[in-house]
Amino acid sequence: MKSVQVCLSPALLPFYELDDAVAVVIDIFRASSSICYGLANGAKAIIPVADLDECLPYRGNGCLVAAERNGEVVEGFDFGNSPFSYTKENIAEKTVVLTTTNGTQAIRRCLAAKRVVIGSFLNITTLSDWLRKQDHPILLVCSGWKNHFSLEDTVFAGAVVNRLKTDGTVIDDAAQAAESLYLEARGDLATYLRKSSHHQRMQRLHIEQDIAFCLREDLVSVIPVLEGKELVCLNEPAAPVGRP
Amino acid sequence: MKSVQVCLSPALLPFYELDDAVAVVIDIFRASSSICYGLANGAKAIIPVADLDECLPYRGNGCLVAAERNGEVVEGFDFGNSPFSYTKENIAEKTVVLTTTNGTQAIRRCLAAKRVVIGSFLNITTLSDWLRKQDHPILLVCSGWKNHFSLEDTVFAGAVVNRLKTDGTVIDDAAQAAESLYLEARGDLATYLRKSSHHQRMQRLHIEQDIAFCLREDLVSVIPVLEGKELVCLNEPAAPVGRP
Repeated sequence: MKSVQVCLSPALLPFYELDDAVAVVIDIFRASSSICYGLANGAKAIIPVADLDECLPYRGNGCLVAAERNGEVVEGFDFGNSPFSYTKENIAEKTVVLTTTNGTQAIRRCLAAKRVVIGSFLNITTLSDWLRKQDHPILLVCSGWKNHFSLEDTVFAGAVVNRLKTDGTVIDDAAQAAESLYLEARGDLATYLRKSSHHQRMQRLHIEQDIAFCLREDLVSVIPVLEGKELVCLNEPAAPVGRP
Repeated sequence: MKSVQVCLSPALLPFYELDDAVAVVIDIFRASSSICYGLANGAKAIIPVADLDECLPYRGNGCLVAAERNGEVVEGFDFGNSPFSYTKENIAEKTVVLTTTNGTQAIRRCLAAKRVVIGSFLNITTLSDWLRKQDHPILLVCSGWKNHFSLEDTVFAGAVVNRLKTDGTVIDDAAQAAESLYLEARGDLATYLRKSSHHQRMQRLHIEQDIAFCLREDLVSVIPVLEGKELVCLNEPAAPVGRP
């Protein structure tokens, strides 16, 4: 691990060198949390696509199609991005084609990276342990909300910075700031994130139980990784859950 | 004042509605600080331009030309963006044509705003008092470093959010975060900002006295405003220095 940077919006990706980097895509509420949960529950693969139209060819092809826009399930789709839809019963052995307002767009914009993995509080320790062993710069990519900064993605990025940082680690200003925010928030993440606009948006949609779920640390020990067009479980022996 | 938002990088400006907004351009180290100081010291106007080439027609036309790139004065120009060049002796009654790595680029990208003003610690109280009375959304625009997030610009934006915010103010996630960072930093700004990459860049250039100067609050009571192509002192009666 050579350096840790935080990209606060997918729109800022053109200003980072992706080629040699491991990109970690973060969309805490809720795409990256649901992707981690879904793969841990035995989904064969999750295929992130940017547009609703791109989902259509997969329908009736043995795939589940999932779509969220502005926080809600899009009509006619099997489900959206609530983690409670990504249970064993619903998706074990299945391929899910997923499009969301922010997270799947961010994944698509990271395709030039050496490797693209998915981060959430649900897999934070497994992910951080693996990142620490990579011989590449780490770029934590916050999906945000329609290219705007989002508090929850940044606080999560800060939690990862906090776990990765050693005396010699080169980190950028955004990583400094993200870690500061995390250190302020970590005593009571749920209360701190109540300030976030996304939280308020989700409150209006009565999906507060999703928020609580997405803030649970280390519920799973998978690392979703992009292989071609598909997110699958990282094939390397997973690091054991728990800090070394 | 309807709402307060913080734009963390000029590259994110396309995602904000500028038309009805008062845009405050922030480039603490050092363009916005030097602009405030220069106008307070009697400069007739400061003309921000994006490119070195754009400066040339103004040369020998009675204007001073100032250019900074990567923290250093560009060869052949009268000076760069160190506030110590913007003294009464140097610039009273003169027009300065200025181009910098970040700040003047940000100003140019805000041209669609209702009004463009310049903020720095040097004029923070005068500026905040004036902003509080505006009947428009406030957009605090951090110039950053080559479109990347910068700690010092964001902490300053947070200081303004902190001064403007009342119970009814709508603020976005970036403003929340900026205020959090400011509240953490304000006990000892200079030490906190030592973490910033720009500070380290300036330390290498031996311009640490510029940093200390740019962190001094309320040294001046001007508000630089863009009129056509020129930054001039706001023509309205300035609010008295000091909080109401």
